[in-house]
Amino acid sequence: MKGVSKLSQPFSKTWSLWHKNGRRFTIDPLWPAEICQTRVPRNANMEKLQNGYLFPEAAGLHEEAPGAELISLGVGDTTQPIPRLVTAAMAETCHALSTSEGYRGYGAEQGNEELRKRIAEVIYEDMGIKQTDVFVSDGAQCDISRIQMMMGSNVTVAVQDPTFPVRYGWYGRIEYMRCSPENLFFPDLSATPRTDLIFFCSPNNPTGHAASRAQLEQLVSFAKSNGSIIIYDSAYASFISDSSPKSIYEVPEPRRYVAIEVSSFSKFAGFAGVRLGWTVIPEELTFSDGSSVGRDFDRIMCTCFNGASSIAQAGGMACLSPRGSRCHEEGHQWLQGQRDDAGGGVRFGWAGGLRRQELPYVWVHFPGRRSWDVFGEILEKANVVTIPGTGFGPGGEGFVRVSGFGRREAVQEACRRLRRLFGRRSVVVRKRDYSVGATEDAAAASAPVLLPRI
Amino acid sequence: MKGVSKLSQPFSKTWSLWHKNGRRFTIDPLWPAEICQTRVPRNANMEKLQNGYLFPEAAGLHEEAPGAELISLGVGDTTQPIPRLVTAAMAETCHALSTSEGYRGYGAEQGNEELRKRIAEVIYEDMGIKQTDVFVSDGAQCDISRIQMMMGSNVTVAVQDPTFPVRYGWYGRIEYMRCSPENLFFPDLSATPRTDLIFFCSPNNPTGHAASRAQLEQLVSFAKSNGSIIIYDSAYASFISDSSPKSIYEVPEPRRYVAIEVSSFSKFAGFAGVRLGWTVIPEELTFSDGSSVGRDFDRIMCTCFNGASSIAQAGGMACLSPRGSRCHEEGHQWLQGQRDDAGGGVRFGWAGGLRRQELPYVWVHFPGRRSWDVFGEILEKANVVTIPGTGFGPGGEGFVRVSGFGRREAVQEACRRLRRLFGRRSVVVRKRDYSVGATEDAAAASAPVLLPRI
Repeated sequence: MKGVSKLSQPFSKTWSLWHKNGRRFTIDPLWPAEICQTRVPRNANMEKLQNGYLFPEAAGLHEEAPGAELISLGVGDTTQPIPRLVTAAMAETCHALSTSEGYRGYGAEQGNEELRKRIAEVIYEDMGIKQTDVFVSDGAQCDISRIQMMMGSNVTVAVQDPTFPVRYGWYGRIEYMRCSPENLFFPDLSATPRTDLIFFCSPNNPTGHAASRAQLEQLVSFAKSNGSIIIYDSAYASFISDSSPKSIYEVPEPRRYVAIEVSSFSKFAGFAGVRLGWTVIPEELTFSDGSSVGRDFDRIMCTCFNGASSIAQAGGMACLSPRGSRCHEEGHQWLQGQRDDAGGGVRFGWAGGLRRQELPYVWVHFPGRRSWDVFGEILEKANVVTIPGTGFGPGGEGFVRVSGFGRREAVQEACRRLRRLFGRRSVVVRKRDYSVGATEDAAAASAPVLLPRI
Repeated sequence: MKGVSKLSQPFSKTWSLWHKNGRRFTIDPLWPAEICQTRVPRNANMEKLQNGYLFPEAAGLHEEAPGAELISLGVGDTTQPIPRLVTAAMAETCHALSTSEGYRGYGAEQGNEELRKRIAEVIYEDMGIKQTDVFVSDGAQCDISRIQMMMGSNVTVAVQDPTFPVRYGWYGRIEYMRCSPENLFFPDLSATPRTDLIFFCSPNNPTGHAASRAQLEQLVSFAKSNGSIIIYDSAYASFISDSSPKSIYEVPEPRRYVAIEVSSFSKFAGFAGVRLGWTVIPEELTFSDGSSVGRDFDRIMCTCFNGASSIAQAGGMACLSPRGSRCHEEGHQWLQGQRDDAGGGVRFGWAGGLRRQELPYVWVHFPGRRSWDVFGEILEKANVVTIPGTGFGPGGEGFVRVSGFGRREAVQEACRRLRRLFGRRSVVVRKRDYSVGATEDAAAASAPVLLPRI
């Protein structure tokens, strides 16, 4: 298949290709480069960013093979319409902006007071989170970037490996916390050096591992003894289907003294394009000089951000209303079904993987093989686009990620092809094995207990 | 008046007070600080940011003196409803999100192709700007922050003094380009040392000075000979009422080889709360190593940003439609009237200032007096809130900024009070005097030509 061979190499181009709008950068011959080149040095960090973790250009394949019936289970995107209740609230806000009475200009950079209050009360009920601890934003990825800006580039960080490739390239020293079948996808903290920051995503993208209560307690305790700050990404929390915590603030203190939580309406409310998220920084959290982390973040939000769109915030309010929550639950069930389809990998056992992944993606292990080879084989023989695991870090070698975000029929067709290609395999890892302290029903306990292999 | 005395000092608190949601940062006595304080060092840049330019807490005065009939002409905010055509387009997008056919998830981080195209074609007609040079964002302030992130903190910068206090505190060396009555509010470039970046806002907030074509040519030529990059902020361009350029790309080459332009829908379309802006980085612009600036910015947008809200972008499309542009022109006239009201300072000559300010703010000179003293006097005797000029930098000493963004009746009442307080003064500076190459009508030419004084 055209283009596959060159894709067997790790991606080395820019992210712009992701959206099929690759730009050409040529110098206009009418104005020779030697005359007009600026003397402004390029930021060395940008170089690091280019050479850091990168997603492959899988998304661009649609265009490269226009004749093939390609199905993309690659990048993944939300597909489920937003409940009418929520879109109606947003539309109403739009209309109000055309009236003298309803018009509003700049809002608070930290978000509308009512929405901050509702997030604190609904999402963090009984967790000791106050309205003023909540900062409303345009999304988790943007907030992680602002947190990085606040922290500066001299702090040391630890990140899960694999994990979603946000730009850790800025930081001075990075420790990779390997999350593999060997440690059942939770890092060995006793072997992790002290760092200033610990980025922790749960459920983790791409492994789908949701940390148990005991594991999060261990993490909080580890951070406390090291004087570290956890940056906890709970963007996928709504996919958790068992009793695993949906927030770092569900575990006992000193949770509020060591953790920031970043989250988003993108997945749980289908707001990927609407743009709405939030970050919680408890007022108890301080830097080593005793100064408030929240106050610095407040300053960053006011200086580098001007508030989330008022329309999106109206949507967020509706989502968190009692009726909105019910609508959302229905959508969530749909998404879980979707994930189970892509999870043909798990249900039909065509490959190894976690028995229960709390994510709309499936993380599939092909021990002994290289991610890019598997990616190429699936692409060539099944016409299905996946993401090679190494796009999520060195620890992703041997894996591919299959997205369940997509039109249901397409996901089902892709699963049929994958089963034809790989057949049924029955080797799975049970959640029970790695989820310390989690309870599992007896039926599940009868599933085979083996490390994944193909 | 209660609270005035302490306001006679420059502002030294955090920005959080701006929105009256000041946070208290205390340590919960149940969990002593010595046990839980993290060992994460505070970013030294945050310290710099705290000590940099700061706006006063004027906005908080509403609450401090609830009994007084205070009128705020301080911070300034958009007040004019958005044309129905535009809000209807946004509402339609909201409704579509609740249907299977109309639902869209993540958009391109750089903005929808159609909107990028329309900005290039409508705003930059015949200026050689391509669709791919345009990055759609959630606002100019946010883009300036992302540009700073791209550039890193080792570059040197020049900024107008006074100027709107964005966070230049990050940069290594800062040159202040004084813009005062003495140089007719355009900096003396022959006395400005070379820097990597030159931030230039036109019309300038707060001085209201719109650079003439000849001045911008001079600026571009200065940047070219120094190998500098201009970051041109045209957020207020729609207030320009004469033939001054509304974009840096209106002047001849090498404009595209030396300039980035940042702009926004906030002022010209009333999108302050909706959040939509854009940045233009021509593909011709390169760093000293010949690498593309646009490509690095593209990477920043994809890593630190996830696209502007799809709903806001639909509004932007409607704004730039032929009918939308007409609606906007009407709104613009209204705003100009508003500005002229606040500009009682100019029309009624109650204070010195530029004869024609291309801004909805009036920058008023009180030679020999301190900004904070004037601010206090106006507050105490006229119950009107303004912004002390020093909030915009050391060059703002002796000035106050009066906003024309507000309810028309309130602005008119404030002007009556100001005239009562200061009487009529006839001393003005004519635009002709500082605007090299600009033509002025004969009537205007008969106005007195003097430096401002009270």
